[in-house]
Amino acid sequence: MPLRFLDGGESHGKALIAVLEGIPSNYEVDIDYIDNELKRRQQGYGRGARMKIEKDRVDVWSGLRGNKTTGNPITFIIKNKDYENWREYFENDVKPEDRIGVARPGHGDLVGFHKYKTGDIRDSIERTSARETAIRCAVGALCKQMLLDIGIDIRSKIYSLGEFYDQSIDLFNDEDYDIIEESSMRCYNKHIEDGMKSTIDMCKEEGDTIGGRVYIGIKGVPIGVGSYSNWDRKLDGILSMAIMSVQAVKAVSFGKVLDLPLIGSIYNDEAYFEDGMLKRASNNCGGIEAGISNGENIEIYAVIKPIPSVKKGLNSVDLIKKQNVTSRYERSDISAVVPACIVLENVCAFHILDEILKKFPSDDFNELKESIERYRSELLKY
Amino acid sequence: MPLRFLDGGESHGKALIAVLEGIPSNYEVDIDYIDNELKRRQQGYGRGARMKIEKDRVDVWSGLRGNKTTGNPITFIIKNKDYENWREYFENDVKPEDRIGVARPGHGDLVGFHKYKTGDIRDSIERTSARETAIRCAVGALCKQMLLDIGIDIRSKIYSLGEFYDQSIDLFNDEDYDIIEESSMRCYNKHIEDGMKSTIDMCKEEGDTIGGRVYIGIKGVPIGVGSYSNWDRKLDGILSMAIMSVQAVKAVSFGKVLDLPLIGSIYNDEAYFEDGMLKRASNNCGGIEAGISNGENIEIYAVIKPIPSVKKGLNSVDLIKKQNVTSRYERSDISAVVPACIVLENVCAFHILDEILKKFPSDDFNELKESIERYRSELLKY
Amino acid sequence: MPLRFLDGGESHGKALIAVLEGIPSNYEVDIDYIDNELKRRQQGYGRGARMKIEKDRVDVWSGLRGNKTTGNPITFIIKNKDYENWREYFENDVKPEDRIGVARPGHGDLVGFHKYKTGDIRDSIERTSARETAIRCAVGALCKQMLLDIGIDIRSKIYSLGEFYDQSIDLFNDEDYDIIEESSMRCYNKHIEDGMKSTIDMCKEEGDTIGGRVYIGIKGVPIGVGSYSNWDRKLDGILSMAIMSVQAVKAVSFGKVLDLPLIGSIYNDEAYFEDGMLKRASNNCGGIEAGISNGENIEIYAVIKPIPSVKKGLNSVDLIKKQNVTSRYERSDISAVVPACIVLENVCAFHILDEILKKFPSDDFNELKESIERYRSELLKY
Amino acid sequence: MPLRFLDGGESHGKALIAVLEGIPSNYEVDIDYIDNELKRRQQGYGRGARMKIEKDRVDVWSGLRGNKTTGNPITFIIKNKDYENWREYFENDVKPEDRIGVARPGHGDLVGFHKYKTGDIRDSIERTSARETAIRCAVGALCKQMLLDIGIDIRSKIYSLGEFYDQSIDLFNDEDYDIIEESSMRCYNKHIEDGMKSTIDMCKEEGDTIGGRVYIGIKGVPIGVGSYSNWDRKLDGILSMAIMSVQAVKAVSFGKVLDLPLIGSIYNDEAYFEDGMLKRASNNCGGIEAGISNGENIEIYAVIKPIPSVKKGLNSVDLIKKQNVTSRYERSDISAVVPACIVLENVCAFHILDEILKKFPSDDFNELKESIERYRSELLKY
Repeated sequence: MPLRFLDGGESHGKALIAVLEGIPSNYEVDIDYIDNELKRRQQGYGRGARMKIEKDRVDVWSGLRGNKTTGNPITFIIKNKDYENWREYFENDVKPEDRIGVARPGHGDLVGFHKYKTGDIRDSIERTSARETAIRCAVGALCKQMLLDIGIDIRSKIYSLGEFYDQSIDLFNDEDYDIIEESSMRCYNKHIEDGMKSTIDMCKEEGDTIGGRVYIGIKGVPIGVGSYSNWDRKLDGILSMAIMSVQAVKAVSFGKVLDLPLIGSIYNDEAYFEDGMLKRASNNCGGIEAGISNGENIEIYAVIKPIPSVKKGLNSVDLIKKQNVTSRYERSDISAVVPACIVLENVCAFHILDEILKKFPSDDFNELKESIERYRSELLKY
Repeated sequence: MPLRFLDGGESHGKALIAVLEGIPSNYEVDIDYIDNELKRRQQGYGRGARMKIEKDRVDVWSGLRGNKTTGNPITFIIKNKDYENWREYFENDVKPEDRIGVARPGHGDLVGFHKYKTGDIRDSIERTSARETAIRCAVGALCKQMLLDIGIDIRSKIYSLGEFYDQSIDLFNDEDYDIIEESSMRCYNKHIEDGMKSTIDMCKEEGDTIGGRVYIGIKGVPIGVGSYSNWDRKLDGILSMAIMSVQAVKAVSFGKVLDLPLIGSIYNDEAYFEDGMLKRASNNCGGIEAGISNGENIEIYAVIKPIPSVKKGLNSVDLIKKQNVTSRYERSDISAVVPACIVLENVCAFHILDEILKKFPSDDFNELKESIERYRSELLKY
Repeated sequence: MPLRFLDGGESHGKALIAVLEGIPSNYEVDIDYIDNELKRRQQGYGRGARMKIEKDRVDVWSGLRGNKTTGNPITFIIKNKDYENWREYFENDVKPEDRIGVARPGHGDLVGFHKYKTGDIRDSIERTSARETAIRCAVGALCKQMLLDIGIDIRSKIYSLGEFYDQSIDLFNDEDYDIIEESSMRCYNKHIEDGMKSTIDMCKEEGDTIGGRVYIGIKGVPIGVGSYSNWDRKLDGILSMAIMSVQAVKAVSFGKVLDLPLIGSIYNDEAYFEDGMLKRASNNCGGIEAGISNGENIEIYAVIKPIPSVKKGLNSVDLIKKQNVTSRYERSDISAVVPACIVLENVCAFHILDEILKKFPSDDFNELKESIERYRSELLKY
Repeated sequence: MPLRFLDGGESHGKALIAVLEGIPSNYEVDIDYIDNELKRRQQGYGRGARMKIEKDRVDVWSGLRGNKTTGNPITFIIKNKDYENWREYFENDVKPEDRIGVARPGHGDLVGFHKYKTGDIRDSIERTSARETAIRCAVGALCKQMLLDIGIDIRSKIYSLGEFYDQSIDLFNDEDYDIIEESSMRCYNKHIEDGMKSTIDMCKEEGDTIGGRVYIGIKGVPIGVGSYSNWDRKLDGILSMAIMSVQAVKAVSFGKVLDLPLIGSIYNDEAYFEDGMLKRASNNCGGIEAGISNGENIEIYAVIKPIPSVKKGLNSVDLIKKQNVTSRYERSDISAVVPACIVLENVCAFHILDEILKKFPSDDFNELKESIERYRSELLKY
């Protein structure tokens, strides 16, 4: 059964809300795990003041009994503490003089103003804000947790920021991953981390922002998830849509395709049997061939653009007054690269679980788990 | 109304077939235009012998009256001339000794063998083959043609192959685009083209294959197509899924994000009014902000991996005999980069039209056209 | 653009929640109108004690600014006042001795127990309860209100209960409809109403329950909504799915098909021009031909089965103890026929608006309204 | 994984075509079985001349190897023999004088004319014709065949025509069902059959048409298929949409709800254990409770309206000339009730298999079959 959710909520509104449908019954949810993902998302060097206001915690308003799933839809609520300062704003009609017309280049406010024609770019600011990723993290965190219990793990690190590149280590070496988890840049190499931090400091000083590239790894997806049967079932296509839909992502790639010479004899991952097991000599393709997982780690890179709220000001327009102006500044982070790592882990988790639930029995977690174990053990026979 | 299609057909089967649903009535289709897209797809330096066998032409088996759409589903058929050599193969049960077990690293045969367990990798070879892109081109070509009539144009060129990079010219300068259309590498610079050709010749000599990067431009999409309302409505996400689902694509990016320093004050595209019109000083974001078209050209880059059928041989496995072997070679091209340009043009056309039909009246082409013109002229008032 | 929502929430849980996506911007929502629909749903002769506990009111947690839609997803929350009595129940793990195993024949608890295997039929009782229809009413009420503003009205009455049949009057005669709105049976004829009430009283005395048939009318849908292009676009099919999905509905029919001789020359609705307008001599088909609205009122009948919570007891099983038992009684209404009318009005509203938004421009309410008016006035020319 | 298909094709066009996606691999298809379903659909007392022209046979153009499914999309083609007489019609532009403007009340031509505005009602006649049900039968027949192999059987009979009612026998008693299969009215009682035939003869003489009611039974669906989690997952809702979408269906009901007093203590189906098996004392609900199969036979009734092509003529309009006229007659059957039985069997088969594939492993038929058997044997433990 396909998994789905819809989420609502404005950046400074009452709450972010999501209804998640299709989660199997009999799974013991650890709410602290979800809250911890929300916390991970709020960390990172170079985040702004908002993160101090909001210590996100999720409330589950439906679908659980004790902490166990029942097959009923699960509702997540993350309240916005900042709402109290904005309540009047949302509850009353917009006063003409309160309307905001100055668009920030790169932000969704300009396009939203023209699409929805509410006459106030505030309305699109509220929904295009990356604050929405908090609720997508909550939804994904439940999925990520469930995946862990069926042997699938998702991890991430930074790959580059400015001039600084940190190597792509094996994310599933726990000792090495601890270093990343403790780094405020999700960076492995200490010297590189220092360089990245200085870069952020410099941006801050100059009233500028900075983007970068992140690396996501997914371990344990068995061969055979996704399909080439029709274009819209390809696992890499599905993940690309999800990843590109995350605020600030502008590029997605699988495996080493951006970093290797694209020569057939170099790029393609040779295969061999060893001790009766199918192995690959490399994983340049990033774990997906023809839209289907090949049993290797799924490896994804995404490029995060710099945040559009640039303090030093950009030439822009006032869409209400029809004037050229300098763009306004809204409280914001210097860089979204580190939190994007966590968001993407959780966004990928939703879709990997979705594909698992389409391939395996999907009503009861115990049946699901048994079925996957049976499938894995039969694959070993090849 | 959303547009949709399903396609079927094997690489050497009787035909490729697609049923396309949701096309407005009263549109005069030019079948020659579609056939020409199929021809464009079959061209390019470095294509293999198959292209000489198949001169693709589309038959339309439903949905037209004369050449006019009626609102009924449209069926496209592209017959495979090669089928006569394979007929026996498809019509009879597989003889055990005819089964193919040797997987080509990078191709879908290995994963297909494990997913669908038919015991013969031929079954997945037949569907994962890039031959399927011919029917996706036919579907997309009708959409592309209709888009042209509402002022939206989609064009493409090569961006890089091996060490050779060709600049990103304005695809919508007709004189310059003629050069690209006449180049067998879809390359603007003659010297670069020569270098690319030599590279392909060298690959051919060495029994190797080569990938590269392509550039797609879409002109004329008005501000406001796509939405940030939920993650699955973002135009860049939707296009990414479609592009990544095309055989051999491993990376998708929008605008100049892979080529520019990711600094907020450099990257974000400043806006200004000039003669009452909203203009942008640059288009680094590639025409989409917050998942919505911003009125500038949509600019997409995709990376095409090298073809997995490598003549010089790769270490691989025989999945039936469970042996390590050298991978088998199946007749193939040296590079798929040039045809990928045409496929991606047409694949994008389907999705742009789909989004247009979701936003505007969708039953009758005349109503659609009028409505878009009205929308465009009202936008000018801002 | 298609409209969609997901809803979550248990009958005695914290709240019922829905996220509604795809509503055009710039529509002024009247929350009192929604609350009034919730109130209408809670009325009717023969309702149980729960209705006294819950005076439903909706809270909107996202998607509005003042009361105006912004294009952002709209979140509805209906809090369950009864939750305070059940909080411990939901928040803690189920104690083995608290598990309920006795299924009520006709209720979803038996099937839910086997499908989701949580070991307690309480989990399915909570979600299959008709309490869920409150949130579907809230979602539908916003749609119904918007439809009113584009000239589409949806009304309902009872058609039969037990031996008593009330005639199908013109629901859109305001004077007559006032009588129905004031009747606690949604019945036009006072004598019939008395008979129905006595029947309910009798059922109550005997610890029994009773079903009946309801009649829904939709006025103002212009010719051309829905499609025959593929089976899943037919308006009557779409409405049937929605109606049948409402708790207790077991039959759906359009027009007079259950009540007329099915003879071609009698049944089919003759057409004629009068004063340049296209008219029909009858509306036996109920306003839909070939899956498309024909401009006449859409007329739907639905049969509501008797409520399964029968106080007098039915032979049943304890699914935990594996014993034959007499079914348990859970506080309930005697008849759901009257509230079903209101639920179905609102459920239909969602789907009519959905189909309208697929056919007409869907981002901005003002554009939508203009476009429909233009379409209507052009139809008059035929 | 959800199953899906799209079909195209006009009534007198080149062919009817469907692409079916999501069928598991390794299933041995019996094409004769599908052809036999097409033949069953073409039988029945009172069918018109067209049935003599078309002896439908399906061609499968993709997705099979020998007769075994491969996981690839399956394309069905049913050629229209009548096409040769209509070729010129489809291939050329419509001559103004050939346009048809006279609508038949009850047919889709009137609404299609206004929706798609092609200026010729022929375009909608071609697609709204019940000929389209032939390809839906082909798609469904493959599903029905696969269901048989996992223990699910679908059968049908007539229930009423005119004044004549034939009792609802147990369709799964093979001896009794043979009688129905051999009856040209799908009627069990010989006397009733004679009455029905005389009624049809009489209609024919009078240039009239007649409708009736049919009965579909589905045996072997295990408890737990469908869901109440969200409204759009309810099995009865899903089946209702599909059934109502079949040409001429105007009412759908489950179980005995149209024929029994709707009193809780009479209507609800008591449950008990016998020899460790869960049993029901009756099946008034028709095998579905709360949108989920309860293990009993699924029993569905549908009402088929009389065919709109009434030879004796109806008052109608010429939509081109804007005149009142007598409706034109197009070659047609007297009654569609008997073929509707077969169409509905096959339409239901698609959706039952779809729901099975959402609940159980869906890639490989062998895995699917094993998983269902395991599920069934575990259910017995309750």
